[in-house]
This record gives sequence, C-alpha cells and structure tokens, in this order.
Amino acid sequence: MADIRIVEVSPRDGLQNEAIAVPTEQKAQLIANLLKAGLKEIEVSSFVSPKWVPQLGDVEDLWPMLPPGGIYSTLVPNEKGLERAQALGVERIALFTAASDAFTQKNINMTVEQSLEVFARIRSNFKGFVRGYVSTIFECPYAGRIEPSRVREVIDRLLEIGVDEISLGDTIGVGVPQEVKQLHTELSGLDQSKIVWHFHDTRGTAIANVAAALDLGYNSFDSSAAGLGGCPYAKGAGGNLATEDLVYFAERSGLSTGVDLNLLAQASLPILTTLQKPPTAKAQLAALASS
Amino acid sequence: MADIRIVEVSPRDGLQNEAIAVPTEQKAQLIANLLKAGLKEIEVSSFVSPKWVPQLGDVEDLWPMLPPGGIYSTLVPNEKGLERAQALGVERIALFTAASDAFTQKNINMTVEQSLEVFARIRSNFKGFVRGYVSTIFECPYAGRIEPSRVREVIDRLLEIGVDEISLGDTIGVGVPQEVKQLHTELSGLDQSKIVWHFHDTRGTAIANVAAALDLGYNSFDSSAAGLGGCPYAKGAGGNLATEDLVYFAERSGLSTGVDLNLLAQASLPILTTLQKPPTAKAQLAALASS
Repeated sequence: MADIRIVEVSPRDGLQNEAIAVPTEQKAQLIANLLKAGLKEIEVSSFVSPKWVPQLGDVEDLWPMLPPGGIYSTLVPNEKGLERAQALGVERIALFTAASDAFTQKNINMTVEQSLEVFARIRSNFKGFVRGYVSTIFECPYAGRIEPSRVREVIDRLLEIGVDEISLGDTIGVGVPQEVKQLHTELSGLDQSKIVWHFHDTRGTAIANVAAALDLGYNSFDSSAAGLGGCPYAKGAGGNLATEDLVYFAERSGLSTGVDLNLLAQASLPILTTLQKPPTAKAQLAALASS
Repeated sequence: MADIRIVEVSPRDGLQNEAIAVPTEQKAQLIANLLKAGLKEIEVSSFVSPKWVPQLGDVEDLWPMLPPGGIYSTLVPNEKGLERAQALGVERIALFTAASDAFTQKNINMTVEQSLEVFARIRSNFKGFVRGYVSTIFECPYAGRIEPSRVREVIDRLLEIGVDEISLGDTIGVGVPQEVKQLHTELSGLDQSKIVWHFHDTRGTAIANVAAALDLGYNSFDSSAAGLGGCPYAKGAGGNLATEDLVYFAERSGLSTGVDLNLLAQASLPILTTLQKPPTAKAQLAALASS
C-alpha cells in the first residue's frame, strides 16, 4: 500500500490538445509503460465527440487494447458519451465542471448548474465509480479569482449527487500553498479521502502545493507523465504537474508511491518522439541523465 | 522595503559553465536589465583565474561598466583573486566552501578545513562584506548524504571567521522540505538574517523548499534569472532556481519582492539568444505569454 495515491492523466489530459495524431497502438503502449512503472490508476481517454476532440476519437479501439491490471477511467462529457462508455463496459468515469460559470460556458457551453444537472442524470444511470472534476478552483482565466466558498458549494452539490471522488483543478496553474490552505479551511467536515488535488505547474508552484496539501492531510494527486498536457501557454511551458516530479518529491520525502522513477522517466519517451517534443519535466530529465 | 530578499546570481553562476562566449557588453546589459526589473543585489562575476573559467575572465572590463544603483558582489576564490578585487574597489565578495570534503577536493583541490583557512586569511585582509557559500548541504555527488550537524559545524566556523552572511546551497538540487526542516532544527540559535538559501530546481523541488524556509522564518534566497546555470544535467534540465519562479511565488503569496516580473522575464532574453537557449523557466514563459 503506497503512502500517496497518484491518478495518472497523461493518456487523456496529456493528448487531447496535441496537433500531431498519436496512433492508437502507441497510446496503448504508453499506458502499458505507465502500468509497468507502477502507476495503477490511469485516465485513458474520453468519450467526447470525435468532432470536438479528434485526438481521442479512437477510444473504442483503444479500450480492448489496455493491458490487464490497471484501474482505468475515462472522461464522459454527456449522456451520449455515457452510452458509448457503457457499451464498452467502462467501470469508472469522470465528469467535468468548474467553480466558474464563465469557464464552463466557454468549455462546455453550460452554466455550472446546467453541468450539475447532467451529472445528476449520468450518476443515476451509471452504477460504477464517478469522479467529478472541479476546474478553476483558484482563478478562472475569464472571471478572475474564485472564492473558496464557491468551490465548496460545487463540491457539496457533487457529493449530494453522489460522486465518489472530486478532483480539484488549478486549471491555469496560478495557485500557491497559501491558497491551498485557504481552500482547505473552507473544506472542513469533508471526507478528505474523497478529494484529489489536480495542480498545474505552469508557474512552478505545483510541488509546493502538493507539499501544502500533504501537510493538511490529503494524499491523492493527479499528475501527467512528462508533464504532458494541461493547456501550456507556450512551447516548453509547464502545464500538468509532471508525475516524475511528484514521484521524486514523495519518495525523497519518505512517502512511498509504488512507482519506479527510472521506468517512469522512460515511459513517455516514444510518445514524446511522436509529438516532436523533447522531455522537459525536471525529475524526468534528472532520472534520464543518471540512468 | 521588500518582504523577501533576493540575491541574483545569473551573471556569475549562470554564465560560468557556458560553452558560448558572452560579450562583456552583453553581460553589462543583462545586469542593467536585472537592476531595472528591481533586483538590487547581484553577484556579477568571479575573480577566478581566466585559465580555469575563461567565461568570467573579463571581470576587470565588466566592473567599470556596471550601472549605478546596484549592490554588486563577486566571487573570490583565493588571495590572488582578492588582490584583483581590491584593485577594482570591490566592496562585497563571496567565498566558496562545502559541507563535504569530497566536493571541495574535486572543485578547489582543498579539504573544507583548508578552504576555511583561506577564508580566514581573506577575511582578515578585507574590510568589506563577505558571503560564505556552503555547497552540498543535503547531499554530495561524491560522498552521498550530508549530516545536518556537519553543515552546522561549517557554518559555525564561518561565523567565527567573521563572514557577514552564509549561502546554503543544495548544489545538486535533491532536497525536499523535510530536509530543510531537519537542517533548520540543527541551526537553532543562529541569527536567521545571516542565512540565505540557495536552492537548485534540478528535480522541481526548489519552490517547495522556499515555502518551507519561509514558514521557518527565513527570508533570503539566491536565484538566477531564467534559471541560468547551476550545473544542469542535460539540455533543458533545471539547475538554479529561476528568479521568475521565486518572484511569482512570493508575490502571489502576498510577499513583496520589489521586482517587476514582466521586466524580469524580458531581462535575460538577449543573453539566452546568445547562448542559443530558449527560455524554459516556468513563470518566465507564463509572463512572456501573457505580456
């Protein structure tokens, strides 16, 4: 049993915005590599319409190729997506909302309230495990700073609806430990095991935020191998927290992750080659240099 | 008066290992840009022999070109270097040692004790401000983990000799907040205002370490614009903590730095072009993308 729980999001969150098409076989290989490195929980793709996100349009082909032994989840944007997921026998799904109406309007053309109504219908039609993503927990690119009380409201609604866990996303990577602490104050009384932190490293603060969350008693984090994805601003810019950085930090801090950092550092190399990106995640580079 | 004190080291630490020669005029321009961005304390060069570090062999030419208004220091490796510094009227110098004999032997061909003897002679011959660098505070690449008590011994010797401040360096960028806290425990009774933390971001932990040090009452940090220098392992790998990341983190945390992040993000661009390196520091990229 690991001391911290990592939900690996690179196959979905890492690839959804890439201009270069990644062959399905290579996605399956990435997932196999991640599993072999010790990552058990992996969000593998999305049932979003291929019209909107062609990068993930091969989920029906990918699903049967997944190696046994993983705990796989997929993003489900709507009831049509749920039908597709159920047809494949998917047992864990993730739904998307935010703490900002401006953000959900731009991304899914709904208010937060409307997205929660979709959540409720999907929840009542699905017996498996449901994650709820709450984006823009600290700041929205369109509406500015977000009040912690607003995040709490959305969390409470999700728990009423019956989601099994909630992933709190610093979507644009602006947060600092002080904001993690402020939000934590607002989360009093919640079951901490249902909260997963999804930090972005756009400005280099993600590991400091992880450290703050650990100090406050949380132990679950989303991250992405090689830091793939997460809406980076510019070539080389940080988006998602790199799983390599998270694993290095945790293991050096005496917290077991169950992940082999050297295997993990290698896991994304083929897909980085396909994407024509050099590795940039710091602990990945350090591991590659020393192995 | 800023809430945190930043000592900018890019002109010295950032350039000393570069293969591409940087014209002296461009170094002066970098320093002027840094000063304009609000960085007051800048380590500008070194009086090391040009035979060993040709990159900094132009210090006598650079010194008269420095714009007024800065608090400039230079590294002084030995008594010959001190003579050169005094001939120029340098008022602040920095001396180098480590918490590991294996590290000083490899770098300056002396034991730590021998380096402290040189320190003592230089101190007695110099009236100005003296900084002592203590490298490898957590781990030495040749000798492994370093005991906090060993770091304390070296600090005590430096204070006996009469240095004015001590910069504690995580030279290979391995440390995590737990190690900052462990070392802090060993520093009890010391005047915290004499301690500067010099974190490297090789594995993405530098800002978390800064956060830990701030929580423990320290407020002085070394960093390098664009993360230049600091013995990176590989192209694109992190070495020094990027000043941009430090400034972003501090300001977002409500701590004033006196630095304009947008000006700072621009400050190193000409020298990065000369060095044929794209910017990679996260808060720098984010600032460039949004300006």
